[in-house]
Amino acid sequence: MSGEDTEERMALTPSVALTVSYDGFGFAGFARQPGLRTVQGALEEALSVALRRTVEVVGAGRTDSGVHALGQVVSFASAEAGTDLRVLSRSVNALAGEGVTVTGARLARPGFSARFDATAREYRYRIATGPARPLFLHDFAWHVPSRLDRDAMNAATALLVGEHDFRSFCVTESAEGQRTHRYVRLLEVYEAEELGERCLTVRVVGNAFLHSMVRVIVGTLVEVGAGRWSPQRVGDALAACDRRAAGPTAPAKGLVLHSVEYPEDVWIEQGVVPEDD
Amino acid sequence: MSGEDTEERMALTPSVALTVSYDGFGFAGFARQPGLRTVQGALEEALSVALRRTVEVVGAGRTDSGVHALGQVVSFASAEAGTDLRVLSRSVNALAGEGVTVTGARLARPGFSARFDATAREYRYRIATGPARPLFLHDFAWHVPSRLDRDAMNAATALLVGEHDFRSFCVTESAEGQRTHRYVRLLEVYEAEELGERCLTVRVVGNAFLHSMVRVIVGTLVEVGAGRWSPQRVGDALAACDRRAAGPTAPAKGLVLHSVEYPEDVWIEQGVVPEDD
Repeated sequence: MSGEDTEERMALTPSVALTVSYDGFGFAGFARQPGLRTVQGALEEALSVALRRTVEVVGAGRTDSGVHALGQVVSFASAEAGTDLRVLSRSVNALAGEGVTVTGARLARPGFSARFDATAREYRYRIATGPARPLFLHDFAWHVPSRLDRDAMNAATALLVGEHDFRSFCVTESAEGQRTHRYVRLLEVYEAEELGERCLTVRVVGNAFLHSMVRVIVGTLVEVGAGRWSPQRVGDALAACDRRAAGPTAPAKGLVLHSVEYPEDVWIEQGVVPEDD
Repeated sequence: MSGEDTEERMALTPSVALTVSYDGFGFAGFARQPGLRTVQGALEEALSVALRRTVEVVGAGRTDSGVHALGQVVSFASAEAGTDLRVLSRSVNALAGEGVTVTGARLARPGFSARFDATAREYRYRIATGPARPLFLHDFAWHVPSRLDRDAMNAATALLVGEHDFRSFCVTESAEGQRTHRYVRLLEVYEAEELGERCLTVRVVGNAFLHSMVRVIVGTLVEVGAGRWSPQRVGDALAACDRRAAGPTAPAKGLVLHSVEYPEDVWIEQGVVPEDD
């Protein structure tokens, strides 16, 4: 089978979308990098072994090193007719090693891309606010041992919701020459005990996010919560379109890519979930 | 100062009660054992360095290897007048190493024992019930990838609440020749998402617990939740006073000693919390 034939055939066969969760600590981020263990690399290697051909995947979010995911979605073109998604998921789980798990598999229409077809991404960022070093949350939350004013933080979030130029809230280099408008549909701060420990969670849903955008938003909101910034200063930072106007970047370990949304009509076959570990 | 003088002085000086949290993985259980890293051993070594004398502590619960604690309480007699509890807590946190943290310190009346003065202990046991291997809960929950019937489990818990002979629900050897009556004040099963993952928590409050009692209760309740046992069979198991009549012992990693209660009048000085990590 020549390369051209393969391409043609892939354009006509369904895509596979895998929902995957991973622990950010075990990986040098999502995106493949030579010589480093990455989520994309681990999944591609496992899929290539399972399907006995080279597989390249596309991810909905290119999470940084240390960032976790519960509902990341990756896709690839399926060249094989009648792939058993349950068997494939189990094979990948057996082959991809510790720290990454396929939690669901779906068939999508030909040409589907986990990245370009995504209509929304939800991230959650956890801040452990108890006075002592968190026990269970240590690896999954940023420890800010002070009372944060949640109402002030939510007054600031209201200024960021909607479509804006978020240039101030992303890593400068990555924004050069790029369109930096994004639409934030929801941004809220809520208190919840997680595993018995005091926790403040920042939940954000948007069409797409700039590099480090959620972490800069969180770092800025903590300035407000701690009383060092007025909520209005966050609006000024947004208007400045300058990274130096916003607050610090929050650490990676508190961030989770929670879920990704797609239009319902992309799916051919829904929600096959591997049964066990 | 002779040994007798020291004893006499300690009988008149206040006790120190430290609230500590620890990750069960880092330790071969709570109780001191030669050649092994234990919670008691780590705390005693740190306190002995900080106070420049041999310190022996008493813990409210002798948790097994792998069991975690958020609100364990340990006590020791204070031979020093005017100990700064905040400074002491910080020293212990700096000296005791990874995985154990002093989260609070109080002065109690002379002769106070974290073990014998405790009026109630609360344990929580977490079961991850999602189909896929849990990501964040992996180290802190037992993964039971099936739908558990919470109502059936709560019907069974009702049969265990109250004062009973819990001989069926403890490790046999440890019960030989011992009084095995215990009072369970509260036992409930509730669903809650923890860190975004599906979780069923068993919460139990009692005056004291036999060896592995909570883990055998949980293992038995899971039999009911999975539909293999009727709730009534749990009442029969209790009446049998025979370990073989109850269900299996649930794994240690899902269990947390959540908190310990004391009468209010034991405290001389309340709630000093170390400020940071």
